[in-house]
Amino acid sequence: MGEARQFLTLPGRFQMRQGGELQSPVIAYETWGELNAHRDNAVLIFTGMSPSAHAASSPADPAPGWWEEMVGPSKPIDTNRFFVICVNSLGSCFGSTGPASINPDTGEPYRLTFPVLNLEDVATAGKRLVDSLGISSLYSVVGPSMGGMSTLAFAVLFPEMARSLVLISTGARSLPFATALRSLQREMIRKDPDWQGGDYPLDAVPITGMRLARKLGMITYRSAEEWERRFGRERTAAERKSGDGFALDFEVESYLEHQAQKFTGQFDANCYLYLSRASDLFDLSDHGGSLQAALRKMQAERVLVIGVRTDFLFPIKQQYELAHGFEHAGRRVNLVDLPSIQGHDSFLADMDRFRPILCDFFNGDWQALNERCSAF
Amino acid sequence: MGEARQFLTLPGRFQMRQGGELQSPVIAYETWGELNAHRDNAVLIFTGMSPSAHAASSPADPAPGWWEEMVGPSKPIDTNRFFVICVNSLGSCFGSTGPASINPDTGEPYRLTFPVLNLEDVATAGKRLVDSLGISSLYSVVGPSMGGMSTLAFAVLFPEMARSLVLISTGARSLPFATALRSLQREMIRKDPDWQGGDYPLDAVPITGMRLARKLGMITYRSAEEWERRFGRERTAAERKSGDGFALDFEVESYLEHQAQKFTGQFDANCYLYLSRASDLFDLSDHGGSLQAALRKMQAERVLVIGVRTDFLFPIKQQYELAHGFEHAGRRVNLVDLPSIQGHDSFLADMDRFRPILCDFFNGDWQALNERCSAF
Repeated sequence: MGEARQFLTLPGRFQMRQGGELQSPVIAYETWGELNAHRDNAVLIFTGMSPSAHAASSPADPAPGWWEEMVGPSKPIDTNRFFVICVNSLGSCFGSTGPASINPDTGEPYRLTFPVLNLEDVATAGKRLVDSLGISSLYSVVGPSMGGMSTLAFAVLFPEMARSLVLISTGARSLPFATALRSLQREMIRKDPDWQGGDYPLDAVPITGMRLARKLGMITYRSAEEWERRFGRERTAAERKSGDGFALDFEVESYLEHQAQKFTGQFDANCYLYLSRASDLFDLSDHGGSLQAALRKMQAERVLVIGVRTDFLFPIKQQYELAHGFEHAGRRVNLVDLPSIQGHDSFLADMDRFRPILCDFFNGDWQALNERCSAF
Repeated sequence: MGEARQFLTLPGRFQMRQGGELQSPVIAYETWGELNAHRDNAVLIFTGMSPSAHAASSPADPAPGWWEEMVGPSKPIDTNRFFVICVNSLGSCFGSTGPASINPDTGEPYRLTFPVLNLEDVATAGKRLVDSLGISSLYSVVGPSMGGMSTLAFAVLFPEMARSLVLISTGARSLPFATALRSLQREMIRKDPDWQGGDYPLDAVPITGMRLARKLGMITYRSAEEWERRFGRERTAAERKSGDGFALDFEVESYLEHQAQKFTGQFDANCYLYLSRASDLFDLSDHGGSLQAALRKMQAERVLVIGVRTDFLFPIKQQYELAHGFEHAGRRVNLVDLPSIQGHDSFLADMDRFRPILCDFFNGDWQALNERCSAF
């Protein structure tokens, strides 16, 4: 498998929002398509918490990306027309500098000496990347989930950069229910004895804590409705053995087990802790004292907000709140309120509903888009 | 503090539904009020997973019970009129025989040698208790949450015993979403190294696993709406210290921490595992091949079903399903569909809504009750 990833080193000291700094951090990214002569056809994508910058395949790396159906030639974010950039968040572990990276000042991994991460830092790293590519105006910035909050941070810190925003299954802040769930995921990892206060060796990572956290993630990313349709009360194929009283009884348990096994080993535990907490710490109204003050700073002319009825990490009322706020700030806003049953993960799972919306948006077919939208 | 608990030993071998048996198990219970001359004024209460039989205070034990506002003289379940019995579930650890009890055959605690527990076993133990009190017809059997499933098991196994049923925030089976959450709670306990395959010493119980499981329980017992109103994004009083990057930031995290600390030490980990799994294993349609076949076996004339819109462990559609099914089976059914924001725990928290409903029901004021009910 080839390598499509590119790396940008930000020279000098990178100041973190909440204090502390990084020495010459690296930002990993991928691009698709070509920057046009006016340098004005770029689309920047911020990711959710766990994906890498590999949003889509390319000749250099033909492996399917996490948003393969959305990004590519003749796809909704059409790389025949747009120069698409996907950035691996600062603090992550897929090429960008994060807690698992070596601190050049010490020659040791940062681990918990990594400074507190905010999504504003993720946004600032994205801005430095865009600058380095010689781009001063983006057609759009797109972000699902945590990436949507990074997009909002980008738009409030660098208001002149984005001509439009696409905010998917996200919100202006984390609500206490989501914070409680993420806090518990972090505790599962920190309470795993193998976490060792963050100093685990790379050949003995806190697998148990990561697996539990991933399972809770899977439970909260989807919806009760979907699981009932998929699994019902189906029992696992294996006969229950006597003396094996707490083995997996139900298909839904096997599914979670399978998902957790896939995830483990991919993601560094300390990076997970930092990104998870950055999501909880984000509050757009920190920028000006109120949500409305923050939204008024942004200059994007057009905003597309997409939400899903069954999402309970970023419930639909958070997308209505954003749509209302942007409209109040004088922007052209489209809100799409989807009945997908796949919950928070619908932007990865219910492509038949998401594809046409982004297609209309990136084609500038406002009439077709309006017909898909909800009043708010 | 006095002892109001009484103990009944069931002599001989108690056969468990799914195989295995217990030697002379003990059932702990409390009673309030007096059995009348006709012996027909008894109300039996099955509890949720974690409470003891101490539903209400009494002269012998003045400590407030878990349903203190509901059970007592001139309270909704009025002990001036009714002889109220609350039973500690078989398999629990508050006086009834469970995995933490000594197996008389070995002199050692059962631990994981305790046979697989089903809610039908809990119901059968309740029946033996009622028999021992010389009661052959109960005014009502009442059960919230897991207790509602035990009530359904009781009603299908011993159809002639109950003249009415009160089913609160419960369902005819566990749905896969609830099973996934409970399965994860069990895994948190089992993955705690201190669990030691179930053989933990009593002075070194798996506290970490129990605390994590309790926190997840608290998250799922309440609702996102309630937490937003209660906590918003309030920060904890303590200033965040540098180098203390994963301390508790938000009030909602402190609240969970406090709740988890209260719970730990009260509940035996193995008992928790058995009762949690018994909830997942329950499916009323096992009794006759379909829900309708099971409901047709029951003889209770009147059924009150109460559900809460914000409950996502036993979502409101499960209470509608029960109400429809009972009506189809020819019973008089009242369904109350409550807008409480306290989620699954509303029957413990939103007493102002629950009290009048049970009041009308136990007063036999059907007209007043009808006015509180929803069409279905």
